[in-house]
Amino acid sequence: MHKIPNIAVIRLALYAKHLEMLHNDGVELVSSVKLAKMCGANPAQIRKDLAYFGQFGVRGVGYYVNDLLNALKEVMGTNRTWRLGLFGVGNLGKALLGFEQFAQRGFIFTAAFDKDIDLVGTEVQGIEISQSEDIKEVIKGPGCFDIAVLATGADRAQDCAMRIVEAGIHAILNFTPIRLVVPENVFVENVDFTVRLHALCYSLTTGSDVTQRHPR
Amino acid sequence: MHKIPNIAVIRLALYAKHLEMLHNDGVELVSSVKLAKMCGANPAQIRKDLAYFGQFGVRGVGYYVNDLLNALKEVMGTNRTWRLGLFGVGNLGKALLGFEQFAQRGFIFTAAFDKDIDLVGTEVQGIEISQSEDIKEVIKGPGCFDIAVLATGADRAQDCAMRIVEAGIHAILNFTPIRLVVPENVFVENVDFTVRLHALCYSLTTGSDVTQRHPR
Repeated sequence: MHKIPNIAVIRLALYAKHLEMLHNDGVELVSSVKLAKMCGANPAQIRKDLAYFGQFGVRGVGYYVNDLLNALKEVMGTNRTWRLGLFGVGNLGKALLGFEQFAQRGFIFTAAFDKDIDLVGTEVQGIEISQSEDIKEVIKGPGCFDIAVLATGADRAQDCAMRIVEAGIHAILNFTPIRLVVPENVFVENVDFTVRLHALCYSLTTGSDVTQRHPR
Repeated sequence: MHKIPNIAVIRLALYAKHLEMLHNDGVELVSSVKLAKMCGANPAQIRKDLAYFGQFGVRGVGYYVNDLLNALKEVMGTNRTWRLGLFGVGNLGKALLGFEQFAQRGFIFTAAFDKDIDLVGTEVQGIEISQSEDIKEVIKGPGCFDIAVLATGADRAQDCAMRIVEAGIHAILNFTPIRLVVPENVFVENVDFTVRLHALCYSLTTGSDVTQRHPR
């Protein structure tokens, strides 16, 4: 398989999300034009992105929603369950533990860590809170996880990331504003809400809708 | 100005974010190759995206960081302050009110709303909580805002969106999983954390790093 660019993967995830909606709505076929409109992309881009992986469309017919969705999930590795470990059970952390979309898409929290000793040992959303110092012990048991979700304060982020890496975890979803310094073989994805606000600012300023609006 | 595609605006926001980091680090010049690497894009894509707006690069030299940043901010409408109104002061809402990145990038909360009458009248992060029924009154005063940030429960999202629209607000950053039904002239940007998790799943599955890692 060719190496695909970073941004194409984000687009594939977006296509998969909208295909899942279509599938849940009972839609069996979708044209590249309609899928493009739903995703805020253009049809040529969609055809190009999907061409990285093979031939999914039928000329004059469109894409078979379920086939394309399954193929995308397989390519992206989202046709399985991924276990998440939360670091930082503050307001954001608690909100993340309660997000139904995670479980619906196969992302399950199996562990949560906090520095607050009053929190350690208590349960939030059915997950027992551990001390982040204990990560190596926790991941030997049912608290084992694949991806760390970093929602600590900025001051603890780098320290926590090092502990995650030392425990052998190779993927971090980073909600903190810190640029984490980690070894090359550790994957870090940074979440930044302000980037999404920019699409709204642009739309309000120019009157041209560039948002990723869901289908109605 | 040409209409630029939705996804290009998200990329522009990403370029602006990394240019801001370079600027804060005192870097004056950046090559399209280096900027591309930082953003996880490719240099040809960056040159194409920036070509929508004019000529920013100097052949053989690169881009002047500050000039390009200011031009992007002007194009995107982020060279000014935008006021935010929060709907739903639960765990996520409280976390959003406390996010320093918002204020650092010119996004200031001026109002917050919740259905919980025990919360109404109290202050969170210096913002007084109002009832969402009172939105029309609130936006006549210092609580006036440009963009609604929707962080209510899923069951209240559509109802709340209608109230926002009726009050004359035309932009919604939607953290709920609901596909909002709003008039054509209202801009909605949906935030979905699971899409970012997919880049990590792909990287873990294939061993190929497609994350938007920050520069080290």
